[in-house]
Amino acid sequence: HHIAVLPGDGIGPEVTAAAVAVLRAGAERHGYRIEVSEHLVGGAAIDATGEPLPAETLAACRAADAVLLGAVGGPKWSDPGARARPEQGLLALRQGLGLYANLRPVRPHPAALGASPIKPHLLAGVDLLVVRELTGGIYFGARERSATHASDLCTYSVEEIERIVRRAGALARERRGYLVSVDKANVLETSRLWRETATRVMREEFPDVRLEHQLVDAMAMHLIARPREYDVIVTENMFGDILTDEASMLAGSLGLLPSASLGDGRVGLYEPIHGSAPDIAGRGVANPFAAIASAALLLRHSLGLEDEAACIEQAMARALDAGALTADLAGPGTAIDTAAATRAVI
Amino acid sequence: HHIAVLPGDGIGPEVTAAAVAVLRAGAERHGYRIEVSEHLVGGAAIDATGEPLPAETLAACRAADAVLLGAVGGPKWSDPGARARPEQGLLALRQGLGLYANLRPVRPHPAALGASPIKPHLLAGVDLLVVRELTGGIYFGARERSATHASDLCTYSVEEIERIVRRAGALARERRGYLVSVDKANVLETSRLWRETATRVMREEFPDVRLEHQLVDAMAMHLIARPREYDVIVTENMFGDILTDEASMLAGSLGLLPSASLGDGRVGLYEPIHGSAPDIAGRGVANPFAAIASAALLLRHSLGLEDEAACIEQAMARALDAGALTADLAGPGTAIDTAAATRAVI
Ligand SMILES: CC(C)[C@H](C(=O)O)[C@@H](O)C(=O)O
Ligand SMILES: CC(C)[C@H](C(=O)O)[C@@H](O)C(=O)O
Repeated sequence: HHIAVLPGDGIGPEVTAAAVAVLRAGAERHGYRIEVSEHLVGGAAIDATGEPLPAETLAACRAADAVLLGAVGGPKWSDPGARARPEQGLLALRQGLGLYANLRPVRPHPAALGASPIKPHLLAGVDLLVVRELTGGIYFGARERSATHASDLCTYSVEEIERIVRRAGALARERRGYLVSVDKANVLETSRLWRETATRVMREEFPDVRLEHQLVDAMAMHLIARPREYDVIVTENMFGDILTDEASMLAGSLGLLPSASLGDGRVGLYEPIHGSAPDIAGRGVANPFAAIASAALLLRHSLGLEDEAACIEQAMARALDAGALTADLAGPGTAIDTAAATRAVI
Repeated sequence: HHIAVLPGDGIGPEVTAAAVAVLRAGAERHGYRIEVSEHLVGGAAIDATGEPLPAETLAACRAADAVLLGAVGGPKWSDPGARARPEQGLLALRQGLGLYANLRPVRPHPAALGASPIKPHLLAGVDLLVVRELTGGIYFGARERSATHASDLCTYSVEEIERIVRRAGALARERRGYLVSVDKANVLETSRLWRETATRVMREEFPDVRLEHQLVDAMAMHLIARPREYDVIVTENMFGDILTDEASMLAGSLGLLPSASLGDGRVGLYEPIHGSAPDIAGRGVANPFAAIASAALLLRHSLGLEDEAACIEQAMARALDAGALTADLAGPGTAIDTAAATRAVI
C-alpha cells in the first residue's frame, strides 16, 4: 500500500512521524506492507516552491492508496494580503481529490474527561459522528474584492447535497439509525435546498433511518447540552467546520480527534482536526493521538484493514487508560512528550 | 416614553407580558412613565395580514422610543416552500430600523450554574459581551434558486465593518479594554476585509484597547474552554448567531439572555435571544427572565434610565438567589411558572 505523507507546517511533521511509526509497527505485527513517500503542502510548500499545493504533490496523492496529512498554516504565512496562503493548499487538495465527505467521529475517552470543559456526567456514552460536506459551499464559491467591498458566494447543487446525505444516511444505518441534518433554513436559500434534498433522499432511500433537522444556532447549544442524544450529524462545509471544533471539546482536547475525507474513488485523506499549533511546534510535546487515530481511519477506509485499524484504536485507548497523557490532557507536571506517547501506543 | 411591544409567536406573548408588567412596576416605583402599544410581527402577522412585517408595525416602531419583541417562528410557518416566513419579519425590522449592532451580554448567575453543561469552576467570574453585526453579511445578500442550485451571497462593506467595530471598541473601552474580533480570514474574502478593517479602526481610534483576532472555529472551542478570558467579542452576523447561542450555555439557559439591537438613531429593539419555543407555548411555564432582562436593557440604552435598569437587574439576581427558577433551570418538581417568576422580580 502506498501512502503519501504530507507533514505540512508547525507540529504537522512531528505528529505525522508518530503516526507513520505506529503504522510501521502495525505492519510488522499484522503483516500488511506500506510504502511511504513525503510531499510538500501548505506553508512549507510555499517556502520551497511558491505554491501551497505543488503539482508534484497533487500527482503523488492521486497515485497513492491514501494520503496522511499533518496540518497547514501559521503566522509566518497569515498576512491577509499574501498571494499564496497555506490553507489554499489544503482546500485545493480536498477539491482536487474529490473528497466531499469529511468524517469526524467524537467518542470521549474516560482518561480525557478531566480536560473537557463539559460536566463528566453529560459525556458518558457520547459517540457521535459529524459528516461535514467538504468541497462545496462558501469555501469554494466565487470571491470578490474592491476598495470598499468584499463578498463570498455560498452555493450548493442538489447533486452535492444528495451525495453527502447518502453517505451520512449509510453511516447512520450502520450505527444507531439516527441522522440529524443541520442548516439555517429560516434564513438561507442554500439551507432550504439542503433541507428539502435531505428530506427527499432520506425518505426515498433510507426510510429505516430517523431524520431530524436542526438549525445551526440551536445545534451549537444541543451539541454541548445533550451530546449523548446524537448519532450521525450531517451538515454543510462552514457549519461543519465550526461545530466539529466545538464538538472536540467533548473529547477534552482537539489533540485526540482524527478525520477521514472521502470521495467516490478509493484514495482518502486522513488528518487530525487540530491545526499546526505554531506555539508548541518543534518542541516534541504535541499530542500525536489525533494523527495516530487518523492513521487507523486510513487503514479502515482506504486499505480495508478493519482489524488492523481497531488494533491501533485499542492500543490508543489502553495507552490513555495507563496515563499516557500529553500536556493538553495532563495535569501540571505529569505530561509526557510526543515520543513517549507514541511508544505507549506501539 | 412610548414602547412598541411586538409579542410575536409561541411563548413571545407570555414573556413580553411579563416584561411589561415589570416595566410598569418599575414606573410606579421610580416615577418614569411608559405608554405601551402592541403590534403584529412574525407568524402572528402572517396569519392576520399575510405579511411577516406589516407596514403599520414598522411605522409604529419608527415612531416609538423603543421596541420590545418576544420571539418569532414556529412549525406552523416553517414550510421551506412558503412565500412568507416569520423570520423575514424580524430581519426586515432589524434592517428597517437600521439596527446594525446586536449586544448580547453573558454573565452566568450562581443559581443557574447547575443548569449549565459547563464545569462550574470555569464559569466563576465570566462576564462577556458579544457584539454581533446584525444587518449585513449572508443574512442580507442576494439569494438565488434554480431547479438544481441555490446560492446565498455574503457581502460586507468597509463602512459596515467600521461602524460595528467602533461600537465594540467603545464598549470594550468602558469595560476591561480587551476586544476579540472573530472571522474566518484563512478562507473568506469578507473575513479578510473584516480583519484588515478591524485592525485599522482599533489602531487609529482605540489604541488603548487590546485587539486580538480569532478564527471562528477556534473561537467555538475557546468560548467554552476558557470563557473567563473574554471581555468583548465582535463578529459578523452568521458567526454571531452561532456563537451567542453557544455562549448561552455558559449561563445555564437560553431563557436568561437578553439582547439589545442598536443603530445610530435613538430607537432600539430589545428581545430575548431565545426562540418561540412552540413546544411549551401557551402553558404559562416559559422563563420570562430573558424578556425582563431585555426590558432592563431598553431602559438603559433607549431611555437613558440607568439606575432603573440596574434596579431590575438586581431584582432578577435576587429572585434567582431566592430560588425563583423556571423549568429550564430547576430540578424536577421544584420549578415555578412564568407568573410566579415575574412576581418574584416585581
Ligand atoms: C485550515 C482550514 C482551511 C480548515 C477548514 O476550515 O476546513 C480547518 O479549519 C479544518 O477544519 O480542517
Ligand atoms: C430567527 C432568526 C432569523 C434569528 C437570527 O438568526 O438572527 C435568531 O436566531 C436570532 O439569533 O435572533
